[in-house]
Amino acid sequence: MADANTNMRLKLPITCFILEIILIILFGVLVEYDEETDAKKWHHSNHSQYDNDFYYRYPSFQDVHVMIFIGFGFLMTFLQRYGFSSVGFNFLIAAFALQWATLMQGFFHGMHGGKIHVGVESMINADFCTGSVLISFGAVLGKTSPVQLLVMAVFEVTLFAVNEFILLSILGTKDAGGSMTIHTFGAYFGLMVTRVLYRPNLDKSKHKNSSVYHSDLFAMIGTLYLWMFWPSFNSAITAHGDDQHRTALNTYYSLAACTLSTYAMSALTAHDGKLDMVHIQNAALAGGVAAGTAGEMMLTPFGSMIVGFLAGIISVLGYKYLSPILESKLKIQDTCGIHNLHGMPGVMGAIVGAVTASLATIEIYGNGMEEVFPDVADNKRTASYQGAIQAISLAVTLGFALVGGLLVGFIMKLPIFGAPSDASCFEDSIYWEVSSKKLLDTSKLCICPQCQRLSYGS
Amino acid sequence: MADANTNMRLKLPITCFILEIILIILFGVLVEYDEETDAKKWHHSNHSQYDNDFYYRYPSFQDVHVMIFIGFGFLMTFLQRYGFSSVGFNFLIAAFALQWATLMQGFFHGMHGGKIHVGVESMINADFCTGSVLISFGAVLGKTSPVQLLVMAVFEVTLFAVNEFILLSILGTKDAGGSMTIHTFGAYFGLMVTRVLYRPNLDKSKHKNSSVYHSDLFAMIGTLYLWMFWPSFNSAITAHGDDQHRTALNTYYSLAACTLSTYAMSALTAHDGKLDMVHIQNAALAGGVAAGTAGEMMLTPFGSMIVGFLAGIISVLGYKYLSPILESKLKIQDTCGIHNLHGMPGVMGAIVGAVTASLATIEIYGNGMEEVFPDVADNKRTASYQGAIQAISLAVTLGFALVGGLLVGFIMKLPIFGAPSDASCFEDSIYWEVSSKKLLDTSKLCICPQCQRLSYGS
Amino acid sequence: MADANTNMRLKLPITCFILEIILIILFGVLVEYDEETDAKKWHHSNHSQYDNDFYYRYPSFQDVHVMIFIGFGFLMTFLQRYGFSSVGFNFLIAAFALQWATLMQGFFHGMHGGKIHVGVESMINADFCTGSVLISFGAVLGKTSPVQLLVMAVFEVTLFAVNEFILLSILGTKDAGGSMTIHTFGAYFGLMVTRVLYRPNLDKSKHKNSSVYHSDLFAMIGTLYLWMFWPSFNSAITAHGDDQHRTALNTYYSLAACTLSTYAMSALTAHDGKLDMVHIQNAALAGGVAAGTAGEMMLTPFGSMIVGFLAGIISVLGYKYLSPILESKLKIQDTCGIHNLHGMPGVMGAIVGAVTASLATIEIYGNGMEEVFPDVADNKRTASYQGAIQAISLAVTLGFALVGGLLVGFIMKLPIFGAPSDASCFEDSIYWEVSSKKLLDTSKLCICPQCQRLSYGS
Repeated sequence: MADANTNMRLKLPITCFILEIILIILFGVLVEYDEETDAKKWHHSNHSQYDNDFYYRYPSFQDVHVMIFIGFGFLMTFLQRYGFSSVGFNFLIAAFALQWATLMQGFFHGMHGGKIHVGVESMINADFCTGSVLISFGAVLGKTSPVQLLVMAVFEVTLFAVNEFILLSILGTKDAGGSMTIHTFGAYFGLMVTRVLYRPNLDKSKHKNSSVYHSDLFAMIGTLYLWMFWPSFNSAITAHGDDQHRTALNTYYSLAACTLSTYAMSALTAHDGKLDMVHIQNAALAGGVAAGTAGEMMLTPFGSMIVGFLAGIISVLGYKYLSPILESKLKIQDTCGIHNLHGMPGVMGAIVGAVTASLATIEIYGNGMEEVFPDVADNKRTASYQGAIQAISLAVTLGFALVGGLLVGFIMKLPIFGAPSDASCFEDSIYWEVSSKKLLDTSKLCICPQCQRLSYGS
Repeated sequence: MADANTNMRLKLPITCFILEIILIILFGVLVEYDEETDAKKWHHSNHSQYDNDFYYRYPSFQDVHVMIFIGFGFLMTFLQRYGFSSVGFNFLIAAFALQWATLMQGFFHGMHGGKIHVGVESMINADFCTGSVLISFGAVLGKTSPVQLLVMAVFEVTLFAVNEFILLSILGTKDAGGSMTIHTFGAYFGLMVTRVLYRPNLDKSKHKNSSVYHSDLFAMIGTLYLWMFWPSFNSAITAHGDDQHRTALNTYYSLAACTLSTYAMSALTAHDGKLDMVHIQNAALAGGVAAGTAGEMMLTPFGSMIVGFLAGIISVLGYKYLSPILESKLKIQDTCGIHNLHGMPGVMGAIVGAVTASLATIEIYGNGMEEVFPDVADNKRTASYQGAIQAISLAVTLGFALVGGLLVGFIMKLPIFGAPSDASCFEDSIYWEVSSKKLLDTSKLCICPQCQRLSYGS
Repeated sequence: MADANTNMRLKLPITCFILEIILIILFGVLVEYDEETDAKKWHHSNHSQYDNDFYYRYPSFQDVHVMIFIGFGFLMTFLQRYGFSSVGFNFLIAAFALQWATLMQGFFHGMHGGKIHVGVESMINADFCTGSVLISFGAVLGKTSPVQLLVMAVFEVTLFAVNEFILLSILGTKDAGGSMTIHTFGAYFGLMVTRVLYRPNLDKSKHKNSSVYHSDLFAMIGTLYLWMFWPSFNSAITAHGDDQHRTALNTYYSLAACTLSTYAMSALTAHDGKLDMVHIQNAALAGGVAAGTAGEMMLTPFGSMIVGFLAGIISVLGYKYLSPILESKLKIQDTCGIHNLHGMPGVMGAIVGAVTASLATIEIYGNGMEEVFPDVADNKRTASYQGAIQAISLAVTLGFALVGGLLVGFIMKLPIFGAPSDASCFEDSIYWEVSSKKLLDTSKLCICPQCQRLSYGS
């Protein structure tokens, strides 16, 4: 398994050290505490300690943090021989991306006297941006080196920040839970990257591109944490008060309804009626994605449940029928099926958001309009115009994601980053110390049907 | 393993779709945001955004949510070949039950102009009700189809809401952590169901009704999350301020003491002094159950520790000596031993609550009496009367649980729901896609004592 | 495997029962609710329910609680045959230690009219003290009986409380995240204990002192929870407002930078450039330890990242080069390498804290000085003096830890506590019921290179 190309002894340390040193220098020059984290500034004003935003955002931040590191990390451990890489590379690129995102988002979202201000809101936003990188990681899972992934993160975070800036700051789009900025962007960016990195001979690693019993249980840890904390994700940066509360509630109902339609569709689409772990692990989460934009609006529990219900159906159908077509016709090898979990439900969420926004009236929102649609409340635009802006934002996001993914895919394709060979994809031992005795592939154990003797082989 | 009866291709989708569509319609007709989640209503009044109850209940809700999906789900993964079903069916029925519970509890706990109001409190209450269904699931684990479980959930949630209404609204019972409403109800309901579903030939699946090494570690994830977050569970819906704070503290001490007595009893009751994972996984939690009613009262840390200490002892003794008797004499096949974790400790918690209530005085509670025992504070009843009401509530709960479980058991016994055969209990591959190579049962690997050759078989 | 000495049938129950009964009696005599948990006292004053400290500390407490039980517990499951003991003994000694710590800390930190007051702050402090016992557990992991561990906890908690009292109350040291009180103390105490318990023939168990594939994934659950929640740990008991907020932020950046340097160093120090799970699981956490003292100070994100970056490098170098030397030269058998995760980073954190404190000025801290360095704000001491006190505190802590560990090690060495023999270390089946079919050691399965037949053996 030793291979000069995939040997990370110099490539990975050089990349990590250069990136981290650049980060440290830029943080030294550009970053300072915001008013809520700075001892002097906070105590300059006259307020109660309990007014600090820490108490109103930090619990949500921690839920999001768990989704990023445990949720995404373990969701991808379903592969039989790729658990170390799934959790470990997820950990590495997330730790890098959240630092880089703090700078990029800080730069685009407004400097304060030449300085980027940091606090719990920047922490949440950085985790959000990191989430979109991890979504893209799902498409190329098993086929990329950690250096490639860090390169991807460098560019994807940058483009994410630009797209987010255009949507939220220039267009005045609402997208609290990131159906567009996070899910649609991350998914189509990743799909384009994996298209560019297409491997015609990936069949050579096919036997490892599947799960074993315990790996599916590990993956369920990821699934459930994503599912449980999605209400916190969608509500983490909405306005305080009813907005956060309502967003969490809507997301909770969307996910619950989605779970039932996922189980129904999984059994319905199997000829023997057996449930497929791939669907349960992924499609049951589509309801959270699809409620990402409209979750903070007056979607109502009723509306949320319809959205979730449909998202689950679409997602399972995608896994069952669309993914094989994407692979065979469009040469998109999407390891985790991110198109079904983040792509289509993200687009759906954007559309639901546009429709819901266009239906907003002062009768429904009352004085709360100011917080959900400030431009509509201030009569700067009509609700229909806001809806149109939401729809345009989806198109902008798709454009950024596809073009960005195309370019970054070609960069990642440079033969200097230590990508694995076609025969050694989905295999931890390329990049990880795995003691030889662990190399016994228990999935190759089988029993002779005649003599009942155990043998080993494919 | 393919079997026309257990084939879920139509049964499960039809059930899920019908249930979810009914839910969506009823939510459309009956449910609306409460004052804290509605943009218009919240902004109509003049209050700080930070007064929204979201900030004072949602962290507790998320802890409870983790207990329901990770806690209960993984606690049941101890079975060697039933991990997908344990986590997966837990996920399905919980996602259904929390929606249905929102309606049932909303209906019984008071409509607002013909509408059910939802917010973080309804979310917590729905999760609580779901918890009782998952407790019952523990008794029939491995022996029921997902359709049977959904049928059980439909009826159990309804009866739970009725019983809860009688206790909390009519009788004025205090039961914040649900020793009665959740644990006693769920346990005796489930025990009656499993009694009705008695399988005389369950021996055929006996070799699968046990754990393997890694499955016990997965189960410990469930145990520890339940243990850690139980203080949040018991305090999630008590009055704000000292009440929530005290309840969490009492539960924390009860659990800590319970853990020591559990380890002690586990070693003491084994002839070779070895600890039994079944006890550690379950009995160490009995202290949380037993502090469910009295946790919000002035039980004192001292009292809480005594309660937890005794609960651990009772629970281990139950696993060791009572469960085999229940199975052989009363034909109650209780897979997870819910009688020992939820049944007896629940009854104990109810009794502790009755005694603690009857001892309440204004010297101890001061003005806090208003929140813990409002009827006593208002001189509507004496403390002893409150204690008597608590005891009566236990009897009412037991009655509802036993009669309800009996009736629902007979409904679940109808041969149309796809229950597994006696020989295929405790087996994921009946209802789940498990690739053939995963079917090697590593627990059947053994080594010939003479020739040291590996062989496979029972 | 049955052995009269390691048989826990009487030893463990007697120890647990005696300890718990003593605890209950002492709690009955000494402990009462504090003002925030007592119904009468809380309602005596006139304040909003929302002012209760429960709402500003409890979410942090729960994060810390998860670190103690899931974080430490699962981090140690990396051993192939010691998962039950890692999680299970961690659970037992933590449940004991948090009760005992409540008394010891309450006694030293100030009684109120002869009573110890308890509430969420005492819960956090007790969990902190428990953390140091679990750190020491890491050094002796696999080589001690549960009774030995309980004995260790009794004494270590006591010494911890004394050392903490000297630092925080007498010297006026700042150490919110416990670089000194928790990490340095726990590490050097544990190292001294394992030195005293040195086993020259530990080689007999060598083949079990390593991981297998799935055990490393379980350990990553522990790692990630520690990593994610470390910002909550360091900020859990700082002053409210900007202090908590800033501490969490600093720790978050320190950990992120540490992760990149850990991956870099892990690849760099391996001759084939492959990442080592031991480094990822442990060294990536060193940034949290190293930010334990200075985290609440105006360390700046820039400073935090430098600290974390260096901590990761030092920690990996320790695992790679120092640990083997400690074992061969100093006879310190440190199972989990706590010297590299808690020892050196703890000392580093103390030094960083001393330097940062000595640089504190009113220009930087403004009125916030009062909360971070009250003695400096009140002109009782200069910043340099505070820095000197911090440095002295490190020396005091090291002294307490080393002498304490030496004495307690000798107590634990008494041959009455049921320690395992040299040949049965790192083995669950000494103390746990592990069904015989689970005893097949899958790590011993191998395939004949010639005939491809499976065989079993070392």
